[in-house]
Amino acid sequence: MLDICLIGAGGVGTIAAYVLEKSQRARVTVILRSNYALVKDRGFDIDSIDHGKVPNWRPHNVVSSFASAATDQKSYDFIVIATKALPELTSSIITELPPLITPGKTSIALLQNGLAIETPFATAFPNTPILSSVSMVGSRLTNSTSVFHQKADVSNVGAHFHHVDDTFTRARQHDAAALFVDVYNAGLADARPKTNARCLLVDDIVGARWAKLLWNASFNTLCTLLRISVGELISGPGRDTLLEPAMREIAAVATAAGYGDAVAEDMIQEKLHDSPPTSTLRPSMLVDLENGRPLELEVILGAPLRVALEKGVSTPVLTQVYELLRQVQWKLTTQAKR
Amino acid sequence: MLDICLIGAGGVGTIAAYVLEKSQRARVTVILRSNYALVKDRGFDIDSIDHGKVPNWRPHNVVSSFASAATDQKSYDFIVIATKALPELTSSIITELPPLITPGKTSIALLQNGLAIETPFATAFPNTPILSSVSMVGSRLTNSTSVFHQKADVSNVGAHFHHVDDTFTRARQHDAAALFVDVYNAGLADARPKTNARCLLVDDIVGARWAKLLWNASFNTLCTLLRISVGELISGPGRDTLLEPAMREIAAVATAAGYGDAVAEDMIQEKLHDSPPTSTLRPSMLVDLENGRPLELEVILGAPLRVALEKGVSTPVLTQVYELLRQVQWKLTTQAKR
Repeated sequence: MLDICLIGAGGVGTIAAYVLEKSQRARVTVILRSNYALVKDRGFDIDSIDHGKVPNWRPHNVVSSFASAATDQKSYDFIVIATKALPELTSSIITELPPLITPGKTSIALLQNGLAIETPFATAFPNTPILSSVSMVGSRLTNSTSVFHQKADVSNVGAHFHHVDDTFTRARQHDAAALFVDVYNAGLADARPKTNARCLLVDDIVGARWAKLLWNASFNTLCTLLRISVGELISGPGRDTLLEPAMREIAAVATAAGYGDAVAEDMIQEKLHDSPPTSTLRPSMLVDLENGRPLELEVILGAPLRVALEKGVSTPVLTQVYELLRQVQWKLTTQAKR
Repeated sequence: MLDICLIGAGGVGTIAAYVLEKSQRARVTVILRSNYALVKDRGFDIDSIDHGKVPNWRPHNVVSSFASAATDQKSYDFIVIATKALPELTSSIITELPPLITPGKTSIALLQNGLAIETPFATAFPNTPILSSVSMVGSRLTNSTSVFHQKADVSNVGAHFHHVDDTFTRARQHDAAALFVDVYNAGLADARPKTNARCLLVDDIVGARWAKLLWNASFNTLCTLLRISVGELISGPGRDTLLEPAMREIAAVATAAGYGDAVAEDMIQEKLHDSPPTSTLRPSMLVDLENGRPLELEVILGAPLRVALEKGVSTPVLTQVYELLRQVQWKLTTQAKR
């Protein structure tokens, strides 16, 4: 039986906690903040395309602080982090993590968006295996204890080989990722025949992150800046002048960074033509903006643009979209502080 | 007594009509569309920083069509156009203008924003003097017959010397502008001691248009795209990464086009530092967006960017802001048509 501590029980995190426990191979301790008392009292109400309606679902343990998570349980096999990937939040989590990490035993699993999200964890915990998940799950909290999960839980998971040496071997890091995938898939066993929910172990998780950025750095950022749906973006003149150029800029940066295979032309064509002009989808970053929540701007645009700068790749569209969204982010965060 | 026909009795146009008649040297025929019956019945209610409260003000004549304007009056000295500067609207006005223009007598006065607004009129009426006004008047319709005018009527007016030859002399074109300025200033005589309202005759109206673009192509477009006030723009990171670069791009284009004097460093500094960080001003283009009205994008950004292309000036910020606002405009106009 694995012991897992999960941080960030939002739409993605709560479904992950549920899946991990459903495997019957893991016990999950969930750290909650504002909704601790409510979840302790009545659990989560889950309405899931994969798992059906699950009222009053309670994880193995819920705690209200990192300190309680450390005292309630001697050690953890995995720390799963499913919060938004925001620099300040990541820093504060890293500050609180040490008591939860048992050297030689614990691995960190990042269920988050963006590029280079593993770096701050790898810097803080160089000998801890870090694996990360690129998730296509469509799931959100509709209130503080209700999860509406409408798109099947499909994810790519891989080890992030931030450093490899004789004692911190590639095999050990790979095995941690393989174990996580194995348990996660066990939790999806019931759902898989219906929805094809699945967790795939991939060798190149960084490539998978670049591939996801083809969409996230273009559709997600442009729809947010323009406050329009996916369908409105691809129906207007911006389809040709903004969207496709932005996507090709990401592909050029990924290629310069050595991940050309992950962003090949067929991938680009698929992302460009996947959505119908009638799509009313409002991407995640736009939903964050509309709810006054900070944007995952640094991991979605800041990080690839730092690679572009380093590799000398020109990104005329993305650079300006980034600066414009930095101004949007500034307004969001200064207003939140007032 | 001059005969003047005015098209576009919005905030700017109605005040212009009032000022021209107040000079007692002009009779103004105003062409109205949707508010014709109301204005015919009870006139405009003007509340003006320059002219005080003027209830039920009626121009000399109001008509509901170009055809009526042509039959009501034998000929006009000036056709004053104070509509928004939108390509489609300009084309439709030009189609209707010929019956109102008496060769050798009539001049066209454009009270509009942007760059190169004179070109379509010059092409259609090559031997008609065209003068244009760069106006700083702050005036708007608060309902279909009420004008709230809160910022003194200050404008630069000059002839647009689109072509000069022996019969269509520079002097004739200049004299038309000088006459317009003279009459307009007569209409401001009462206001001038209080508010310093004034109409200045300038030699280089194109330079004056570039100078106004320093603000309009930067503050106006960025506040619109980001949907923020002037104060929010200059308080955030976009002040340095977007606003100042955008303004300097306009200055570079103007300089390449031979109008460097109009956009000198002291002008840039003045525009950058003129507004306080507390300013809640929402620029005109943003107000248009918020009211679902089309944006004056082509004359404010499209025209200077065409010059940039022609002169080979790099405009990394403005090019992207333009493409982003084209998408915004597309949404505005397709929604309006539905």
